[in-house]
Amino acid sequence: MSDDQATGIEPFDAVDVIRAKRDGGAVAEAPLRWMIDAYTRGYVTDSQMAAFAMAVLLNGMERDEIRVMTDAMIASGERMSFAGLGKRTVDKHSTGGVGDKITLPLAPLVAAFGVAVPQLSGRGLGHTGGTLDKLEAIPGWRAALSNDEMFTQLRDVGAVICAAGSGLAPADKKLYALRDVTGTVEAIPLIASSIMSKKIAEGTDSLVLDVKFGSGAFMKDVDLARELARTMVALGTDSGVSTTALLTNMSTPLGLAIGNANEVREAVEVLAGGGPADIVELTVALAREMLTLAGQPDADVDAALRDGRAMDVWRAMVRAQDGDPDAPLPKPRETHTVFADAAGIVTRMDALPFGVAAWRLGAGRARPQDPVVHSAGVDLHAKPGDRVAVGQPLFTLSAEDGSRFARAIEALEGAWEIGAEAPASVPLVLERITA
Amino acid sequence: MSDDQATGIEPFDAVDVIRAKRDGGAVAEAPLRWMIDAYTRGYVTDSQMAAFAMAVLLNGMERDEIRVMTDAMIASGERMSFAGLGKRTVDKHSTGGVGDKITLPLAPLVAAFGVAVPQLSGRGLGHTGGTLDKLEAIPGWRAALSNDEMFTQLRDVGAVICAAGSGLAPADKKLYALRDVTGTVEAIPLIASSIMSKKIAEGTDSLVLDVKFGSGAFMKDVDLARELARTMVALGTDSGVSTTALLTNMSTPLGLAIGNANEVREAVEVLAGGGPADIVELTVALAREMLTLAGQPDADVDAALRDGRAMDVWRAMVRAQDGDPDAPLPKPRETHTVFADAAGIVTRMDALPFGVAAWRLGAGRARPQDPVVHSAGVDLHAKPGDRVAVGQPLFTLSAEDGSRFARAIEALEGAWEIGAEAPASVPLVLERITA
Repeated sequence: MSDDQATGIEPFDAVDVIRAKRDGGAVAEAPLRWMIDAYTRGYVTDSQMAAFAMAVLLNGMERDEIRVMTDAMIASGERMSFAGLGKRTVDKHSTGGVGDKITLPLAPLVAAFGVAVPQLSGRGLGHTGGTLDKLEAIPGWRAALSNDEMFTQLRDVGAVICAAGSGLAPADKKLYALRDVTGTVEAIPLIASSIMSKKIAEGTDSLVLDVKFGSGAFMKDVDLARELARTMVALGTDSGVSTTALLTNMSTPLGLAIGNANEVREAVEVLAGGGPADIVELTVALAREMLTLAGQPDADVDAALRDGRAMDVWRAMVRAQDGDPDAPLPKPRETHTVFADAAGIVTRMDALPFGVAAWRLGAGRARPQDPVVHSAGVDLHAKPGDRVAVGQPLFTLSAEDGSRFARAIEALEGAWEIGAEAPASVPLVLERITA
Repeated sequence: MSDDQATGIEPFDAVDVIRAKRDGGAVAEAPLRWMIDAYTRGYVTDSQMAAFAMAVLLNGMERDEIRVMTDAMIASGERMSFAGLGKRTVDKHSTGGVGDKITLPLAPLVAAFGVAVPQLSGRGLGHTGGTLDKLEAIPGWRAALSNDEMFTQLRDVGAVICAAGSGLAPADKKLYALRDVTGTVEAIPLIASSIMSKKIAEGTDSLVLDVKFGSGAFMKDVDLARELARTMVALGTDSGVSTTALLTNMSTPLGLAIGNANEVREAVEVLAGGGPADIVELTVALAREMLTLAGQPDADVDAALRDGRAMDVWRAMVRAQDGDPDAPLPKPRETHTVFADAAGIVTRMDALPFGVAAWRLGAGRARPQDPVVHSAGVDLHAKPGDRVAVGQPLFTLSAEDGSRFARAIEALEGAWEIGAEAPASVPLVLERITA
């Protein structure tokens, strides 16, 4: 219909790009780059991008299209570089879970081996917590660093966990907000490019992905999680970042603490050589993966937890960001403990309802602008496989305001089970995915 | 994620509705009605509706969903009624073609049998002409009538061809504009509900659809055209309007005139008992279909063309809308004739390029706000099956401005063929589709 119309100075037409994807084809490099760029500039409208995102969700994207789209999102903003550090850089990204505080012990542990860990993190939304929210439970700690501060800390301390600046992949920020309100969040090519655009723009040499499946994960289904992991590993590799992924089980909360201050406490236990077995297992597995990518496949990770080297980096890292590693963490005003009403073995503790309960207690937020309550959350006293007697405490809820307990308990309806036989043991790390 | 958010007073969430369609399910009646209503109110955004439209395009809609969506679009505006007329009402809708002036002789022909024909029509865009544009070639004729004027004319004259008021299905107007820029025009459920919402809101008792296929049609593919016809017949029937459809061939221009004034001239020839065979055939077939729905299956349609009854209604109809049926029609300032460069039989004249040529000559518009040139267009001197000698005129282009000829001739490159053998004859009316 536009045959006789002036075409202006734009080299492509959004409707043609949408139609190509809608009709099941691959979009060529130039129009796809243009689409992302023109969307960032506001020439391509939200409506057009929403239709395109739905077509991507339903018709998929080829590996090369995902690479081009991601590259275009990176090109929309600043690209960091740590080349001047003289150290290898390695980062980790988790797709998010319940009780997932692994970044906290992991970053200093890996940095203890002379590798730089530039861990740009986010805040939580909904039932999955955010690493920055957890660390902000530490008095004085600040998430916002300038690029210079980040560079200095990486050079001097080795690990930094801080907020991603708004200059990284602004196209992704705009697109994510749109996907959130248009039912197009769940498109694997879009999830992959959203995560990876920020990680690649961050300038890390290598990246380990913790892609979770199970009730507490963003991707409940293991096959979809595997597809996402493979897509992201391919994308990282195609973009020059050495990338591997672990596919990990998120059916049961990780560790015993779900919240913010209590998760920091648990992380410090791990750094002190203790902590729950699953947290230690996953921290060690991811550290080995990261150190392998950084050229140290034989690093003795366990030793660095036992002998205090990882703890030293942690303390230096917290101090470098104005936190006091020795200050007492916030404690809750009110607690509510739930006790076993039967004797037996805990057969199930479902991650999602425990995550929702912690959220409802105030540990998480419903809207990006909401604050979190650092002392709120859930502490488990037993995990699947543990034998309990009648009246033994199962878990304790914490909140600033006791009126929150009712809705948290409601969320936990049917979330755990006590039976006669031990549950089948499931591996925490299901698969390793490489390029 | 919105678990803890206030839900406001809206009973549904657009993202849930989009997801239901995205995941291949049917959307239930209440949320679907709400979606259309909330979109009309502006609560559901263009982006959300664009994502929904793409999901409909790719995943389809069930018959009942289409009925509900159409009903919701009708409910967004005014609903007309001709119950007070004391006559049966029957309307025709064509999906549009090249040289399709059938409405002009058809409406008065059917009205000659005492049936009311409330023919709300539109303007052309791109290569398909609009009925109102053609009639506006008649000096004085006006397209805009009030509902009262329309009612009076239907009562007194029997036929009215006028502009659809903006009060009919405003949701469709908004949705159509959105689909146009988001690559979601080609969704059969959305095309069907767009067409039928206006026809049902118009209040006709019965409706005959002329659904075209072939190069000059909106739906090139016969199977898609059939699916659209079946969808609209089902939708009309489900909505209480007796509806049938003819599936007709639009591979070759209809008649010999493509434009505005020249199409009116050709329509008048038909009303005078002459005119090209294909125009007469289609006019008669559609008139029989309409009169059958109006309870007169045995009406002698040919006689009403021969004996001037249809012409009488035409003249009264034109006069009732301030047109002068005897005034000379606008004539072109410049013409350009193309002659046969070989002797033989015309084997092909492709509708689309002839439509594009007429458009480029000024007969059509590229943007809704553009004017049309009433005298511009193409007049064919031969049609497929006709024998021609070298140097015999094939067609004549007309324009106000001779500089337009070059691009029109460019459009006609390869658009016709002269061969040795007569082309296989194809039926103009391929199928009749009933509920």
